[in-house]
Amino acid sequence: MNEKRTTLIGAGLPRPDAVDKVRGEAKYVDDLAFPGMLHGWVVRSPHPHAKILKLSMAEVLDDPDVECVVTHADIPGDNVVHVIYDDQPALAETVVRYVGEPVALVAATSRRAAKAAAERLQVDYEPLAVVSDPEDALKPDSPVIVSTEEAAEGGGNLFNTMVLRKGDIDRGFADADVVIEGEYETGYQEHAYIEPQGAIAVPEDAGSLAVYGSMQCPFYVQRAVSKALGLPMSKVRVIQTTTGGAFGGKEDVPSLICTLAALMAWKVRRPVKLVLDRGEDVLTTSKRHPARVRYRTGAKADGTITAIDVDVILNAGAYQTLSSAVLWRSLCTASGPYCVPNVSVDAKSVATNTVPNGAFRGFGSPQVIFPHEAQMDQLAVELGLDRAEIRRRNLLQVGDLTATEQRLPDSVGVAESLERATEMVDWSARLASIDAFNAEHDSLARGLGISCVIYGVGLGGKAPFLDKAGVTMKLEADGSVSAAVGTVEMGQGLTTTLLQIAAEELGISIDRLQLAPVDTSRVPDSGPTVASRGTMMSGLAILDAAKKLRARIESVAADHGISVEDIPSRWDEIASAFWLNNLDPAVEGWARTEPVSWDPETGLGDVYPVYAYATHIAEVEVDLVTGESDLIDFVAVHDSGTILNRTLATGQVQGGVAQGVGFALMEEIPQRDGVLIVNGLTTYRLPTIRDVALNMGVDFVEAEFPAGPFGAKGIGEVPLMAAHAAVAGAVSQAVGAQATRYPLDPDGVAGLLRQSEASV
Amino acid sequence: MNEKRTTLIGAGLPRPDAVDKVRGEAKYVDDLAFPGMLHGWVVRSPHPHAKILKLSMAEVLDDPDVECVVTHADIPGDNVVHVIYDDQPALAETVVRYVGEPVALVAATSRRAAKAAAERLQVDYEPLAVVSDPEDALKPDSPVIVSTEEAAEGGGNLFNTMVLRKGDIDRGFADADVVIEGEYETGYQEHAYIEPQGAIAVPEDAGSLAVYGSMQCPFYVQRAVSKALGLPMSKVRVIQTTTGGAFGGKEDVPSLICTLAALMAWKVRRPVKLVLDRGEDVLTTSKRHPARVRYRTGAKADGTITAIDVDVILNAGAYQTLSSAVLWRSLCTASGPYCVPNVSVDAKSVATNTVPNGAFRGFGSPQVIFPHEAQMDQLAVELGLDRAEIRRRNLLQVGDLTATEQRLPDSVGVAESLERATEMVDWSARLASIDAFNAEHDSLARGLGISCVIYGVGLGGKAPFLDKAGVTMKLEADGSVSAAVGTVEMGQGLTTTLLQIAAEELGISIDRLQLAPVDTSRVPDSGPTVASRGTMMSGLAILDAAKKLRARIESVAADHGISVEDIPSRWDEIASAFWLNNLDPAVEGWARTEPVSWDPETGLGDVYPVYAYATHIAEVEVDLVTGESDLIDFVAVHDSGTILNRTLATGQVQGGVAQGVGFALMEEIPQRDGVLIVNGLTTYRLPTIRDVALNMGVDFVEAEFPAGPFGAKGIGEVPLMAAHAAVAGAVSQAVGAQATRYPLDPDGVAGLLRQSEASV
Repeated sequence: MNEKRTTLIGAGLPRPDAVDKVRGEAKYVDDLAFPGMLHGWVVRSPHPHAKILKLSMAEVLDDPDVECVVTHADIPGDNVVHVIYDDQPALAETVVRYVGEPVALVAATSRRAAKAAAERLQVDYEPLAVVSDPEDALKPDSPVIVSTEEAAEGGGNLFNTMVLRKGDIDRGFADADVVIEGEYETGYQEHAYIEPQGAIAVPEDAGSLAVYGSMQCPFYVQRAVSKALGLPMSKVRVIQTTTGGAFGGKEDVPSLICTLAALMAWKVRRPVKLVLDRGEDVLTTSKRHPARVRYRTGAKADGTITAIDVDVILNAGAYQTLSSAVLWRSLCTASGPYCVPNVSVDAKSVATNTVPNGAFRGFGSPQVIFPHEAQMDQLAVELGLDRAEIRRRNLLQVGDLTATEQRLPDSVGVAESLERATEMVDWSARLASIDAFNAEHDSLARGLGISCVIYGVGLGGKAPFLDKAGVTMKLEADGSVSAAVGTVEMGQGLTTTLLQIAAEELGISIDRLQLAPVDTSRVPDSGPTVASRGTMMSGLAILDAAKKLRARIESVAADHGISVEDIPSRWDEIASAFWLNNLDPAVEGWARTEPVSWDPETGLGDVYPVYAYATHIAEVEVDLVTGESDLIDFVAVHDSGTILNRTLATGQVQGGVAQGVGFALMEEIPQRDGVLIVNGLTTYRLPTIRDVALNMGVDFVEAEFPAGPFGAKGIGEVPLMAAHAAVAGAVSQAVGAQATRYPLDPDGVAGLLRQSEASV
Repeated sequence: MNEKRTTLIGAGLPRPDAVDKVRGEAKYVDDLAFPGMLHGWVVRSPHPHAKILKLSMAEVLDDPDVECVVTHADIPGDNVVHVIYDDQPALAETVVRYVGEPVALVAATSRRAAKAAAERLQVDYEPLAVVSDPEDALKPDSPVIVSTEEAAEGGGNLFNTMVLRKGDIDRGFADADVVIEGEYETGYQEHAYIEPQGAIAVPEDAGSLAVYGSMQCPFYVQRAVSKALGLPMSKVRVIQTTTGGAFGGKEDVPSLICTLAALMAWKVRRPVKLVLDRGEDVLTTSKRHPARVRYRTGAKADGTITAIDVDVILNAGAYQTLSSAVLWRSLCTASGPYCVPNVSVDAKSVATNTVPNGAFRGFGSPQVIFPHEAQMDQLAVELGLDRAEIRRRNLLQVGDLTATEQRLPDSVGVAESLERATEMVDWSARLASIDAFNAEHDSLARGLGISCVIYGVGLGGKAPFLDKAGVTMKLEADGSVSAAVGTVEMGQGLTTTLLQIAAEELGISIDRLQLAPVDTSRVPDSGPTVASRGTMMSGLAILDAAKKLRARIESVAADHGISVEDIPSRWDEIASAFWLNNLDPAVEGWARTEPVSWDPETGLGDVYPVYAYATHIAEVEVDLVTGESDLIDFVAVHDSGTILNRTLATGQVQGGVAQGVGFALMEEIPQRDGVLIVNGLTTYRLPTIRDVALNMGVDFVEAEFPAGPFGAKGIGEVPLMAAHAAVAGAVSQAVGAQATRYPLDPDGVAGLLRQSEASV
């Protein structure tokens, strides 16, 4: 324990951004305007796969409201949306590969005029053969749609293929008393952030450009815009505007949105705003990868798992974006928070003529968590064990090896989370009362589900070069403190926790601290705000800065005969001494994680700096007539290390649970021949407050992470990851058949009921 | 000599800001707008001195276009414009003390509406007795107008009184073979920056405020706004917008303008723009202090000066602003660039019911340079010596003591500048040709004038806490470099020289470097951009940052087996290695000058870190009928240490000379009972290109300053300082009578002619 940990760490301090947001004064990107600003609109492909024959812009350019049309021919740099692979063009050149792919841009004096002109702009296409199912796309006779050879690591439409081989899988199954198997499917999930994607590109001085936008990863955008415009990175600064939710949906997509805005602004030398319509946003931006997953689990009669064999296939869509990284997390997470001696995983991401999928809270892990938790439940049923007990017998402990053979030296709170969660619901009694309820009801059935998850915090061994963060900080002459960080507040509360960390270390009130708007020109590349890494990485960096500033302050205090104890009461005097004596009041903080490793041959390595854990328990009541499921109770217990702000951590859990409940019970986008059947949020059902248990119990077991800021790990993604599986387990128990596909909406439940009846 | 000094230092590289300015794309403050922005207007006192009886705002508030009226009662913090003394209210409370003093503010939906409402707003005054001449203000029966006792250091209306006592002045005069004396007067000079004063205050997140404005000293503004709003300094960030000239006029005044804009924005919680009209700007903002100066100089028959006795009185106007600092420079500069064993100076700044005067290029020195150079000429006439020769015999050399008894260890190029300048005009031959011309003409007379000046670079011993500067710098992943500085580009070319310094040290092209907009939240307080300190101070800071970054780069290169010689060709590879290996690419640079000292009892001390020098020679042709003077030729030779960019330095000299020519020949604002008789720039005559010698010869003697960046000192103010005195000397010679007051316009020349005729 840090001995200064007295007042601020763990305190449920209110968010400094809350007042502005509640008063409607926070400035989202669409609230901003710049003099001379134009409005952009994207001309998009209506086809999932087609040749572009001709683009006629003459008529559009006659429109006095239209300032310019931009096509691929206008791109001064590389025609790519740089994410990982450079396979996605900013603007299609000869072929379109998904519905909604940008083909041209129109900038006009109003949004309405831009949209009208874009609709008038004539593009002639010749449709090509479409492939929309990843397994079809792998067949030898499939049309090949990948745009660059580099993107197709596996050849053909196979973007990526990865393996994990721990132990001896054959021996593992040979040792098993029981083996179960299953195939599981999950579909699209839409991020449904409140604020749609948007950006404003503003030409600045000396041939430089600023891009303002709603985003998680300003440094990704900086690099992407720099590449497309052919500018040095120092000539592109990216400023994150108040961001109304993201959930991964603003990890990769803003690189596209901002590049498009920048292309228009650069051509017309004026600011250009590009904000997507909701329908456009839902139809054309990345979602959670649909997955088909095959699992086989072997266990001893006592429930001890001996082997897990997994086959994962993700539908990546038309371009790579982040698919390789998403797939990698599926791979590393596939055996869950369990100590499994023999693990084999084969994971593939495949190109199809559908919208490119990308990051979504959980990032490839929900697709394997649903199966691994379903398998635990099936195993419990098979072995006649309690579902909590079978998990308890297999959970990772300090000293254990993960699926990638990473030894866990400390901070493993999953078993404790299971104990706490089962206590909170009084597990056995609750099961009994559910039995009683079910016995009393014909058309209603209740079930209790439990899930345990592991989450590698940060970006890990597939992208170790991203796990860093910088901070600048300075003491003002009046004793207040200004700082800048490189990870973003997007609703999760990061600003508050970072201020708490700095204020705690400096020993001042958080009211005297102010974070500057996140601007890539202020701090070094601090990586993306994803992977639940914000608090850990920027927290370490701001702690580093605060320690350096604190050391200087103590030294100046000593020079002025001020004891360490008197620093708080004489703080302003010390700040004044810095100023009067021309002492440097600025520091820069830097953090990077301990080296991680990953061997692509075996899939093994110390792949993450640390892991977070959770156990969720859901009680669900299913109407056996309508197929509707109601959440009756929900308990979530998390190990994210030290909790820096309990109020915010609880909020993260509540939000993540809601999103997990939606994933399990209702969210769905059907797709036919590459066309997504969705009309904005009108036809996409999201959970409301009525769908989420209002009495949700949230608690934390704080397995301190010694290398984290004040012992903290990460939290953001974990609640979603755990919640859906607990809900699915509860529905499965209520209905008496194991769910194998989402959503468990009335149609899904009807299917389960048929399955249950068939098996009886 | 720095061994890397190979390519960029001295190179006449073009300004990165030039293209934007020429294309009209640079964004001055009035080019900016923010959503929901209101426009402010200032209700000003029409009286030089009056009691405020009543302010009726009801009728104005009925106007639907008016969003608010702000009076002193609305000020959340201290009602002061913080500069040095806190004697000036942001908004007058009970008394107004000069014409144009702000009494209230109106914010409305348009500039027109705000102005109309401000004109309707009824303020009742009771006029009070007015004092407008500083010597009257010191009389016992003068009304006392100073607003706080602290501001009147000398009591009554006497703001400041300072002395300098070097050697034994009585003995100095006793040793003299000849003593001459004179009284000299100079009046107002208007900065006449192209862009008027303006600011936009924008409420930002978490109770913070951003202020955008045209200014020289963002850190002054930060402090002033923070004081008036009662906010921690970390909650106020100040961003300098492209600034269309300043010349000292945007040193102190923006603290007022920005405070007024901030008060409106804070009250209405919306952005508010306040841009002054030209007439309002000329009438109500600071100018060069009118001065009355009495000089007595004693010299040996060979021209060696034995004593200088000076009495300076500055008309400060109604509030202190920077008067004490301006006066201090008058004090320290009073004996010019000459080695004088016995010096006595008495300097006073006095409050009057006139506009508060402040900084203007030269900052209190032109008021004493005109006299000290006039005295040299008078002495030459008296002793029958050549005017260049008498200067040559007295100029400071390395090892000499200045008037404040500061030993000059190095970098004293004034004698060399005199030699170069006299060579350039072929001094003796030119004098002979002028004699010939004059002999041939009745109604035309030509004269040759020479002046030598010394300028203490930086802020020196009166404000040693300001001579510091900070920089942040980072290497981008692509090898380009981003940096931020705390001093501003205002047309003088600072951005270019700073980029040259950084690029030279790093060994890259300046195209790969980009400076961020100056924003107080980016870098520590770097002091003001005044006193010709920008290149020296931010130059040292950016050099410090570049050296630190370069050292890291060399270390990383070594780790990768890259030799120092190969760094340029493998630069991008090294930058990439930083990024891939999570190495900290950010540094912060810091600079402060060597300690300076000043003893207020004696006026002695090592008052400046270093001095710049110049010799100017002007040839003038006076029409003896009309009294008009034409500049025939002009030569300016400067010692500003190493010249970093010869093109820009030459531009600084040309501009400063033009402003000096205007000061000597034409610029004037009459004042009557505290009322300035001026109507914008319509009635204020400024030099045009036709008034300035087109064939001006500019050269540099580069007496390297070892502690400066690549040997540089400062240049900005020196050309103005030297030019007017050379012109005055030339007119005096042409007319045959020593000028003792500016301007030497036809009226002034007529007076001189009468004096000349009287003496014949």
